[in-house]
Amino acid sequence: MFELIAFDADDTLWHNESVFQATEAQFARLLESHHPADSVRQRLFATETKNLEHFGYGVKGFVLSMIETAVDLTEGGVRGDEIRQIIEWGHQMLRAPVQLLDGVRETIEALSRRHRLMLLTKGDLFDQESKLARSGLGDFFSSVEIVSEKNASTYQRVMTRSGIEPQHFLMIGNSLKSDVLPAIDAGASAIHIPYELTWAHERVDGHGREITRLDSIREVPGWLGESAVISGL
Amino acid sequence: MFELIAFDADDTLWHNESVFQATEAQFARLLESHHPADSVRQRLFATETKNLEHFGYGVKGFVLSMIETAVDLTEGGVRGDEIRQIIEWGHQMLRAPVQLLDGVRETIEALSRRHRLMLLTKGDLFDQESKLARSGLGDFFSSVEIVSEKNASTYQRVMTRSGIEPQHFLMIGNSLKSDVLPAIDAGASAIHIPYELTWAHERVDGHGREITRLDSIREVPGWLGESAVISGL
Repeated sequence: MFELIAFDADDTLWHNESVFQATEAQFARLLESHHPADSVRQRLFATETKNLEHFGYGVKGFVLSMIETAVDLTEGGVRGDEIRQIIEWGHQMLRAPVQLLDGVRETIEALSRRHRLMLLTKGDLFDQESKLARSGLGDFFSSVEIVSEKNASTYQRVMTRSGIEPQHFLMIGNSLKSDVLPAIDAGASAIHIPYELTWAHERVDGHGREITRLDSIREVPGWLGESAVISGL
Repeated sequence: MFELIAFDADDTLWHNESVFQATEAQFARLLESHHPADSVRQRLFATETKNLEHFGYGVKGFVLSMIETAVDLTEGGVRGDEIRQIIEWGHQMLRAPVQLLDGVRETIEALSRRHRLMLLTKGDLFDQESKLARSGLGDFFSSVEIVSEKNASTYQRVMTRSGIEPQHFLMIGNSLKSDVLPAIDAGASAIHIPYELTWAHERVDGHGREITRLDSIREVPGWLGESAVISGL
């Protein structure tokens, strides 16, 4: 039924938002003598949102937004060693081992034996290629697409490039906004597997549409089996 | 003869290194009370090189390397308003109009009528897509590949993905190291069109190999015409 199954990466295959939120908590502690943690977080989010148009997603843009927020919230009083600490968090994030979500390795390996798999992720090209290399999953994907934004036309372009009709394309990811709704808008199928945390920028509701939602990637092969049976009737 | 002609972007289609070097000169002036300009530049290049493995290419990594260098060279004494200034240069670089090199628009437009053209560039995905959009050249390219590194296996992968044999693939760019030598190593043809400035990281010699070198992109259609005549004999 599905000739190509595409997976989102961050928070679908490996932990990501938890890494950002842990750094954000350290950042709030760094500035706690100036502002309460909640207002630091709000200000950082406002700076990230303002910068998104020029920076895109990823660690480097996040670090630059933290530095900008630190300068603003201290009215220029931030010290060099504090700036150095923020940059060092960025280096740590970029070097940190990639932690796969439960069930990912065995499920991806099993699916790769019967399907063409694609990694389809937005974000910083360099970060994402590096994470894929560190994840040990690289060999299971027959193609990798790293895009700057995931909207319906992105999915159309990916399907055209891969020579796949929408009815044979399945997208799986943790973000309704980026993975599920635009793929459905482009005529494809999609499965939503929520992650424990969602970045505020990715929060949307399903606009009343019926969404296929699974609790774990482990349920995907079963779901595909059922779908195959149903479509085979 | 060539079914697919791929162009590098930075310093092949539009000015880039000059923008970085102008910012670098401002950065050296910012720190001139601490260190002479030459040693600031050397230290910045050392920081960039150290960070390349984790940051990749692009404006955001460059800005982070400037900030790190400023903290180091002032022994932590850099002020918040100076950090803010460095970040603002980054924003300016990301917003700046894209300045096409002489002859680019008309040549690309003319070539696009007779050939499939690809934009094949390394760097930050978000920066490069944004520059392509601002360049007004987007419609002339039938595909865009933004990669994290350009080596022989990158060119092999691009050709395989595009279904093109090496003898039908031509790469054109300003960097011997990234555009010309690895494309030739992958069995393709390449044209070197030097830019007035070369980033130290991109400097290599031709290792004694014979390289096709043109002074301007304007000479490409003529070169293709001659090649076509020769191959048609």
